Amino acid sequence: MNFNKKLESIKTYEAGKPIELVVREFGIEPKDIVKLASNENPNGCSSKVQEAVKDIVSNMALYPDDSMTKLKDGLSNRFDVSDENIIIGSGSDQVIEFLMHAKADSNSKILINSVTFAMYEIYAKHVGAQIIRTASQHHDLEEFYALYKEQNPDIIFLCTPNNPTGDAIDSKDMFEFLDKIDKDTLVVVDGAYMEYAKAKDESKTVEPKTIVEKYENVIYLGTFSKAYGLGGMRVGYGVANSKIIKELYKLRPPFNITTLSLEAASVALDDEEFVNKSIAMNFQEMKRYEEFVKEKKIDIISSYTNFVTLCLNKNQNSSDISSKLLQKGMIVRDLSGYGMNAIRVTVGTSEQNSRFFELFSELI
Amino acid sequence: MNFNKKLESIKTYEAGKPIELVVREFGIEPKDIVKLASNENPNGCSSKVQEAVKDIVSNMALYPDDSMTKLKDGLSNRFDVSDENIIIGSGSDQVIEFLMHAKADSNSKILINSVTFAMYEIYAKHVGAQIIRTASQHHDLEEFYALYKEQNPDIIFLCTPNNPTGDAIDSKDMFEFLDKIDKDTLVVVDGAYMEYAKAKDESKTVEPKTIVEKYENVIYLGTFSKAYGLGGMRVGYGVANSKIIKELYKLRPPFNITTLSLEAASVALDDEEFVNKSIAMNFQEMKRYEEFVKEKKIDIISSYTNFVTLCLNKNQNSSDISSKLLQKGMIVRDLSGYGMNAIRVTVGTSEQNSRFFELFSELI
Repeated sequence: MNFNKKLESIKTYEAGKPIELVVREFGIEPKDIVKLASNENPNGCSSKVQEAVKDIVSNMALYPDDSMTKLKDGLSNRFDVSDENIIIGSGSDQVIEFLMHAKADSNSKILINSVTFAMYEIYAKHVGAQIIRTASQHHDLEEFYALYKEQNPDIIFLCTPNNPTGDAIDSKDMFEFLDKIDKDTLVVVDGAYMEYAKAKDESKTVEPKTIVEKYENVIYLGTFSKAYGLGGMRVGYGVANSKIIKELYKLRPPFNITTLSLEAASVALDDEEFVNKSIAMNFQEMKRYEEFVKEKKIDIISSYTNFVTLCLNKNQNSSDISSKLLQKGMIVRDLSGYGMNAIRVTVGTSEQNSRFFELFSELI
Repeated sequence: MNFNKKLESIKTYEAGKPIELVVREFGIEPKDIVKLASNENPNGCSSKVQEAVKDIVSNMALYPDDSMTKLKDGLSNRFDVSDENIIIGSGSDQVIEFLMHAKADSNSKILINSVTFAMYEIYAKHVGAQIIRTASQHHDLEEFYALYKEQNPDIIFLCTPNNPTGDAIDSKDMFEFLDKIDKDTLVVVDGAYMEYAKAKDESKTVEPKTIVEKYENVIYLGTFSKAYGLGGMRVGYGVANSKIIKELYKLRPPFNITTLSLEAASVALDDEEFVNKSIAMNFQEMKRYEEFVKEKKIDIISSYTNFVTLCLNKNQNSSDISSKLLQKGMIVRDLSGYGMNAIRVTVGTSEQNSRFFELFSELI
């Protein structure tokens, strides 16, 4: 059986190791495994969300409300935009997938940062589009602009704060950049970690409302997987001009969000106390990482997210260290696949972080 | 902003009205609404599934086990195939989406039955492929074969039992048909309602194992949305030759199934008692529909599913009747969009069906 040619260049994506896999592979008890690899909220999710979901488990038999009115109303109120400016995806991933299929094809070019979220490239390959990368590790908007002029890409991705490095673009610089981009080039501002940036530094904050009002060619992405603690429920969203949203809707499969996920996200959005507490704890614990690396003489990238990126020294090997940590039940993300001798560590609970410091110290 | 040309011919899909929308539109109390429009299991879902999901609500913060080993093991045991023969989708819909993007493009032809599951055409449009339809309302495999020879389609969809008509293909005839199809034409056997057909008539039963062993170009689709009572959790699957599965895996977005959905489906698969009871009740209640239409002199299509298709008489208008039923809080599916003066009614609980008979009788 022959398949489409574009599939030849696609490798099957391998996600970070879930706890279940470490249990199976290394025979470590689940209680002894610490997973700091996927930037999940170490506080879990809001107890209000848990109660709300328990209350409606009998609704699992019913197809979801495909209008998603309740969740869209919640988001449009939060961002002071209209429901027509919002599309919900199975994770913000799925909105990226819609964007790629709506705007790009095998003749397209996609401009991304040298080190950034892996799914941009993966979805670009799904449509056979060509990826153009900057040279700079951090988003250098001058380089982005030069490549934009030279390559004429169909889509530009700006990930801010950036995954897997944690740094963020100054919003003033970003808007100046957006002002210079022609209206037929789609720009995606991926704000998956924006709640953290907003709490840490107002100058890094991008409001979806500004995007909607000022730019007809820009879409903002957000997610419930990080600060809201719902990584397992697959809910993300895009906020943009209604014309963009209308086109993306054509590619949205019906019932793309589960009945329980819709409820979980709606309730999570209302529990600001949980989110604020999570973020406050995150930056408090992050200070411990900053002190730890200072003591160990290791570089860290200043992070606006719920993870830290430790840039290892020459005599330390990120793959080797990650693999040894894994054998002790500590799961972190090796960034060697991104061309960096670095590991990305989710800021966990106080206890989890102490365990990381202990195990990591033994290895360097 | 310009988008891909193929989007021009795509209309946004409108799903059947959920209860929430009827509440909003007609101000009817949720308790007074009966939804027999989406072929959900009227018994809800297994209490064992509900308990299992309640037990793990705190895991909503954790990304799903993307290897899906537990669920794949369950399915491979059930069907006596290997894990490499299985791919899990967000509903079997998503497996259709993978198939379309893997095998078809804007130069492709897709052969489907004149009246069949709407998503085949919708996903065909996503890749710009051309739809070829049979003339016959029921799957006429001779007509399928003639069109196959004449049109040389890339993909053929056989929906058995068929949605929205409820009839099923004799498996003997189907295998004879499959024997004649060349190995580069992908054939999709969509068995979303197969659990019902299997219980009613062995001669309509298609076993995934037979597909895997005999045909390198055929994929079987199944779902947890119907007999297993998990329409809201979005879990379906494809079973095929491992070479097909491997290609589809390239297009699978990571974490396409929620953490709670994986658990729900795994537990549901083990609760055979619930499924068997649901199916027994379904055919018991279906007899009441058969008696009812006999009395009312309305045609019904012999159904191997959990719904019945009432083919109305000339003086009855399916759109008009559906709309009047809706105003009374009874949601059924008008099939005028499929070119039929018919309504599709999910076989509900005894009480729901009595309510349907009562309201429908007032309208004809």
